[in-house]
Amino acid sequence: MSEPFRIGLLGRGTVGAAFADLLGERAAAVEEATGRPVELAGTLTRSEGDFGEILGRSDLIVELIGGTDPAREYVLEALRSGRPVVTANKQLLAQHGEELFGAAREAGVQLRFEAAVAGVIPIVRAIQESFGVTEIDKVFGIVNGTTNFILSEMAASGVAYGEALSRAQNLGYAEADPTDDVSGADAAAKMAILARLAFHAPVTLDQVAYEGIEGVTPDDISYARELDLSLKLLGVAERRDGGISVRVFPCFLYGGHPLAPVAGPFNAVMVEAPAITEVTMSGPGAGGIQTASAVLSDVVSIISGEAPVHEAGSDLELVSDVSSSFYLHLEVADRPGVLAQIARVLGDNEVWVKSVVQRGIGDDARLVMVVHECRESNFAAAVAEIAGLDELRAPPRFIRVIEEEFV
Amino acid sequence: MSEPFRIGLLGRGTVGAAFADLLGERAAAVEEATGRPVELAGTLTRSEGDFGEILGRSDLIVELIGGTDPAREYVLEALRSGRPVVTANKQLLAQHGEELFGAAREAGVQLRFEAAVAGVIPIVRAIQESFGVTEIDKVFGIVNGTTNFILSEMAASGVAYGEALSRAQNLGYAEADPTDDVSGADAAAKMAILARLAFHAPVTLDQVAYEGIEGVTPDDISYARELDLSLKLLGVAERRDGGISVRVFPCFLYGGHPLAPVAGPFNAVMVEAPAITEVTMSGPGAGGIQTASAVLSDVVSIISGEAPVHEAGSDLELVSDVSSSFYLHLEVADRPGVLAQIARVLGDNEVWVKSVVQRGIGDDARLVMVVHECRESNFAAAVAEIAGLDELRAPPRFIRVIEEEFV
Repeated sequence: MSEPFRIGLLGRGTVGAAFADLLGERAAAVEEATGRPVELAGTLTRSEGDFGEILGRSDLIVELIGGTDPAREYVLEALRSGRPVVTANKQLLAQHGEELFGAAREAGVQLRFEAAVAGVIPIVRAIQESFGVTEIDKVFGIVNGTTNFILSEMAASGVAYGEALSRAQNLGYAEADPTDDVSGADAAAKMAILARLAFHAPVTLDQVAYEGIEGVTPDDISYARELDLSLKLLGVAERRDGGISVRVFPCFLYGGHPLAPVAGPFNAVMVEAPAITEVTMSGPGAGGIQTASAVLSDVVSIISGEAPVHEAGSDLELVSDVSSSFYLHLEVADRPGVLAQIARVLGDNEVWVKSVVQRGIGDDARLVMVVHECRESNFAAAVAEIAGLDELRAPPRFIRVIEEEFV
Repeated sequence: MSEPFRIGLLGRGTVGAAFADLLGERAAAVEEATGRPVELAGTLTRSEGDFGEILGRSDLIVELIGGTDPAREYVLEALRSGRPVVTANKQLLAQHGEELFGAAREAGVQLRFEAAVAGVIPIVRAIQESFGVTEIDKVFGIVNGTTNFILSEMAASGVAYGEALSRAQNLGYAEADPTDDVSGADAAAKMAILARLAFHAPVTLDQVAYEGIEGVTPDDISYARELDLSLKLLGVAERRDGGISVRVFPCFLYGGHPLAPVAGPFNAVMVEAPAITEVTMSGPGAGGIQTASAVLSDVVSIISGEAPVHEAGSDLELVSDVSSSFYLHLEVADRPGVLAQIARVLGDNEVWVKSVVQRGIGDDARLVMVVHECRESNFAAAVAEIAGLDELRAPPRFIRVIEEEFV
């Protein structure tokens, strides 16, 4: 058996604890992917552990303390000692990125930070690797879930900013002191990082102009709706006038814009370049387990060093008779009792109607319905039986439906 | 200077030619990212070149011939000789994936294939690397741009399938013989690959049940609209009943579904897992330059072997006075000529009104407008001047607008 790969964990807040749990749960998968067992070499908290001692018995450091001090010193020391580092610390990277990237380069070790921007959305990896040699024109999007939740709430229910903020706080989407999020400062740090990666230019947080959402009124949102506009807090990093512009500001989008439907605490980032047109990535922007997942993927990448195609070791069977919801289109003679008869056939086969539209009269009537999720074999049996009814004027037509409704 | 890294290119069709061009254009960026200059060691076409000879002078093989024969033999031979391979060949992977992955594992070299699924959308890398140790429940989405264009066209203009197909062919989105796309076979191959990666189970093309869109009628689409449903050709790979189900079928989605707004020749893929909730990635599903970009990113990953943060070698300046479109909200006394006066101030500052809504009467009127993109400094000057007008009842409020309208 290979030597275990030892991980030193700095910080045991929400994300740190979620990471330790996830590492335990996914230990077998990590070993399969990397060829090495992994173990926690030690955890540094405010009250327990000694950094130097933990560093000494670790092959890699995961920094989840947050803030710039002492995180900066710890990360620098780890890199200089030849240990790769994974961090979720956007402030640290936005303020001291060059120093850290330089230290990593000098030591010849990796510094990874997927979790620092847009949570589990793999935007850092996409820009660094998938679009690493692409001439990127623009990276922009919704990189703060708190403000997106507040704006979605104002738009959906017409409440004022203060009320929407309270709701966000009650649901755990906003901190007791929400300043960092609602002022745009959090988004600005993330945009500094994305701009640095996209343009290979040393952008730091103090160069990013930002505006927040505190001044937005329900009035603005309702007038804008008449103009088919929806409001988002956007971070934008783009080539402009021979240089680059990196900013954060509330901004209206027209209805068909790919970012317009992104609602609630979600994040979404778009990358534009001639060679890729545009790619959009969206998902949850935060959350302990999601952020921990992003950290773990970085850890695995460092250990494995390449893209493994796992051996097909799974004994999962291919299933054929699954459950689905269906749209069913019937052309029927509009005689008394025809709907009841069809409903009976469906019911006999354990197929239940969710909604139905009836159109036309006489011999040219249509029954169009959506049925709830059912076994496809049951649905097929019901349709075969219905096809045999005297009242049918044409073969039944059906198409599957994803029943899930989003708001 | 380092030795050049030599690439052997098999195939010089649309994608092959685009790749050769892109490699030339981005040569400096590739060298910066990888530390090595790259060069084409040779190109094999139907009429020119000898495979064995090209293999002998290559460090890596890019396979863009398509089809399974002779692509399979070439890729196997390259892997067995210790050369990593990048391919965009979905049929090859969907039919002979295990054999190829096994050969790569045995030789200890990489086989990468981002371009085989969903073009430039980095879904292969996301599943292999970002979500490589995540217990994925479901991967699904729109993985064929031809059919999505046809369905979008039918929905937008009410035309029948045949007419929409003709339009797709005229625009180059569908082949003269469209069978592979419209039958769902192309999507099935892609879903076999995604299922293999997501579930580590040896899924092959012949195990994927697929249905196409040839039977869809304008009737279905218009009835469905009454039920708030839009039609997509979906590929779905998911855990079901203790096994997995991999299928392709036309399917209705409710309006708020993240895939519902994906229109035209675009692709989009969603990944669901408890640890990541859901992540959605969308972008152009095909196109020579886009596919070539995906191939190049794989080549760079193989050469560099890790995620480089490029040195901040760029001398791009941070620009502050950029151009933007704005929403402008004015509370005014509704006196004769007030709109004209405001329009004059805007015009004097080279700010042009795009649309305007006027509301209310007397001292409580509102003028809400969107202005076209203009210098932010000009807009600020205009707003300052407007704020000084006697007719203003409150300070002007403004919010940026992304002017681009999507359909």
